[in-house]
Amino acid sequence: MNKNHESHYTENVQHHLQQVQSLLEKHALVETLALKQEMPRQERHELLGAILHKQHLAELQDKLANLHSSDIAFILEALPIEQRLLVWDLVKADRDGEILIEVSDAVRESLIATMSREELREAAEQLDTDEIADLAHDLPHAVMRDVFKSLTIEEREQLRAAMSYPEDAVGALMDFDMVTIREDVTLEVVSRYLRRFDEMPDHTDQLFVVDRNDIFKGVLPLNRLLVNEPEESVSKLMRTDTIKLHPDDKAEQAAQAFERYDLVSAPVVEEDGKLVGRVTVNTVMDYIRSQSESEILNTAGLRGEEDIFASVWKSVKNRWMWLALNLCTAFFASRVIGEFENTIEKLVALAALMPIVAGIAGNSANQTATIIIRSLALGQVNQSNARRLISKEITIGGINGLIWGGMAGIFAFFLYKSVLLGVILTGAMVLNLVLGALAGLMIPLFLQRIGRDPAIGSSVMLTAITDSGGFFIFLGLAAIFLIN
Amino acid sequence: MNKNHESHYTENVQHHLQQVQSLLEKHALVETLALKQEMPRQERHELLGAILHKQHLAELQDKLANLHSSDIAFILEALPIEQRLLVWDLVKADRDGEILIEVSDAVRESLIATMSREELREAAEQLDTDEIADLAHDLPHAVMRDVFKSLTIEEREQLRAAMSYPEDAVGALMDFDMVTIREDVTLEVVSRYLRRFDEMPDHTDQLFVVDRNDIFKGVLPLNRLLVNEPEESVSKLMRTDTIKLHPDDKAEQAAQAFERYDLVSAPVVEEDGKLVGRVTVNTVMDYIRSQSESEILNTAGLRGEEDIFASVWKSVKNRWMWLALNLCTAFFASRVIGEFENTIEKLVALAALMPIVAGIAGNSANQTATIIIRSLALGQVNQSNARRLISKEITIGGINGLIWGGMAGIFAFFLYKSVLLGVILTGAMVLNLVLGALAGLMIPLFLQRIGRDPAIGSSVMLTAITDSGGFFIFLGLAAIFLIN
Repeated sequence: MNKNHESHYTENVQHHLQQVQSLLEKHALVETLALKQEMPRQERHELLGAILHKQHLAELQDKLANLHSSDIAFILEALPIEQRLLVWDLVKADRDGEILIEVSDAVRESLIATMSREELREAAEQLDTDEIADLAHDLPHAVMRDVFKSLTIEEREQLRAAMSYPEDAVGALMDFDMVTIREDVTLEVVSRYLRRFDEMPDHTDQLFVVDRNDIFKGVLPLNRLLVNEPEESVSKLMRTDTIKLHPDDKAEQAAQAFERYDLVSAPVVEEDGKLVGRVTVNTVMDYIRSQSESEILNTAGLRGEEDIFASVWKSVKNRWMWLALNLCTAFFASRVIGEFENTIEKLVALAALMPIVAGIAGNSANQTATIIIRSLALGQVNQSNARRLISKEITIGGINGLIWGGMAGIFAFFLYKSVLLGVILTGAMVLNLVLGALAGLMIPLFLQRIGRDPAIGSSVMLTAITDSGGFFIFLGLAAIFLIN
Repeated sequence: MNKNHESHYTENVQHHLQQVQSLLEKHALVETLALKQEMPRQERHELLGAILHKQHLAELQDKLANLHSSDIAFILEALPIEQRLLVWDLVKADRDGEILIEVSDAVRESLIATMSREELREAAEQLDTDEIADLAHDLPHAVMRDVFKSLTIEEREQLRAAMSYPEDAVGALMDFDMVTIREDVTLEVVSRYLRRFDEMPDHTDQLFVVDRNDIFKGVLPLNRLLVNEPEESVSKLMRTDTIKLHPDDKAEQAAQAFERYDLVSAPVVEEDGKLVGRVTVNTVMDYIRSQSESEILNTAGLRGEEDIFASVWKSVKNRWMWLALNLCTAFFASRVIGEFENTIEKLVALAALMPIVAGIAGNSANQTATIIIRSLALGQVNQSNARRLISKEITIGGINGLIWGGMAGIFAFFLYKSVLLGVILTGAMVLNLVLGALAGLMIPLFLQRIGRDPAIGSSVMLTAITDSGGFFIFLGLAAIFLIN
């Protein structure tokens, strides 16, 4: 890892991005390059070198060489595709692997598409087995076969293990960079052992104590190693009450354990007591970030993270599902209104007022759902308190219905000089807000019950219910009480 | 910190919650207690002890004594207010401080409200100065005065420093638990110095090297301390190219640095080079989680995190702003429709079709906005690429308009047997989706430009535009081409 690049944080990464952008613009080479996208990377690179003012290119290359891999990943994500590929060509090949790990899935795809089988193999071979596992589903089969052949037997085993877990399991988060020691030695011996390392793995805050069969015994925090006398024995100082993760545990649960107990690393132990790996806080933090991002994206009906410079078609594909679903529910709502066309014909004011009934209830229902979804995610809602929540949310729906429905009723009265119309509007809003509150509670609870993620799809269903329900209630009340 | 409670992770916290709930229910004492909420904590506790089967109470108290503070905080959040206060009474007073730090703002308020000035002072005095600072705005002034008096001069200085930074600054995240060393010593000396500690501060992955004026010189990673020979000197092994945070830096920027460079701790250094504190990864992780949560809450128009067992009135207050705003925009949209009442009277089908035009555009605009807001937060959008994004999103809007608008047009044709009506519907949807795409881009960019958080309020404004715009475009086109 290029630790020596960290110093550049002071002039932050947005600044780097601007510098790279201005260097790119200086050349006005973007157009030239866009034509050559089909060429193999090597040829393109050579051609570029010939065409361009060599010193500008060198300047850009220098700049990139001094950046941390994560910063290069950031810059690649922020550049349109042609500029991105140019920068990618200028990055030293021996950093390709690290950078591929750092970029988002969508951008990784665009980079991998331009690389030869040979380049990909070399990039993958720079990585640890757990990182190769993360990359595996983006690499062509042939490349993975080559990579697999180049590994030692132990590494193959690790790679197989890492790839065998679903993305949301602890097994998918773990790495294999552990320092293990035996319990029957003194701290002095441990210290001497450590001095034989050139460097310890990142995020080593504790050493893992195992027996000769790799059975996990406990951990020795570096903290304890450092504050105690060298004569003390590991068995006396190690902690046996530590958190153990299991490779099949849910990643979200592990993330909560890291947050709750402020962990830096945790051992991953199988049923038979064997230590198989560890999870570190940086992986957990990445996981939390990506989870919260996909929650935000899903709430808007986006299926995955979207490369902001993806082609128009890719973006359309990423977004179509939601819009299609929305069109269906809109058609349904439209048919509900259609059933009342005679009523509207007699009092066209209804058409102007009906979106108010639908809109507010939709918003209020989404507020209820957001709170429930959050509490479900934290595990704070269970059968013993769900009933209480239901009666609370219905009360809130009713109160909000009276407040905002009352105001809307007064508004309608002043516009159309009809007390009855105002009362019907208020009544419809109370009923629709209560309906929305019920739906906002029941839909997430139902999705959770059937094992689906309550954050995905709740809002489309809610809007469908509050729209169609609102139109039906309002126009129905009007048809009964107003039009005769 | 109660590290020895961590072992309980294996039977996870939801399980603890259920146990506590069932113990609480066994007593059926909830009703009794609800009547006594006004009594001071002490009296209530005594009364309880007298009323209840003592052994059940003891069982609950034992259970709580064995839990990690973070787990107790979790349980408190998941309990309705009366049960929550009962459990709070049973928690050992010497853990009050830690637990108050862990719970959410809303729940903290409910706990603090039941505590006497004396209890609060004791709770605060168990904490480090940076933690007291976090609690400060929830404590009564009198309590803070008492606490302040009990601190040493150095601690007072730290507390003042920690409280002087806004919530979103690095200064608000930092703590003062640093181990500092001098550069002119050997590792041997450092090791001997560390052995004088009973325990090092949590998350000590590096020692901070300072001169006698506390001027920051560099860091000595424990990693290097452990793998190198004792005779080596600190000055030779310390890293000087490390990331330095400034107390006025944005917390979000520091969080990104932690994620990007996989840090465990980072020094906080003032302009004059003085080391003032450090930031650790657990604080950063909490910050990231709370940010992503408030983003999700804000998107739904909730002003802050809501205690799920808050009173109905508190919840109504938390949610009213958004609904009020929504009512205003709904009134406006209603007036737009009102202007076309004559048109609708002549062709009532328009009333049934108009929600389709508004709904889809609103969804599509929100998708655009979500992607832009995310890219803005990451700093990937700047002037040099904004224009490109605009043309891309408008193209997507147009294409989606043709696809879904075309389908809606066919639907309308089959229902109402009018080609012109279908064409007008399609045309209106294309125009409204393009309008939505423009608004979805420009509103977040505008909010960002004027220094507001683009995640807050975008969606209400967007819906207002696509609703009113959709009604206006569709009914306007119909008035011109259809009704004459």
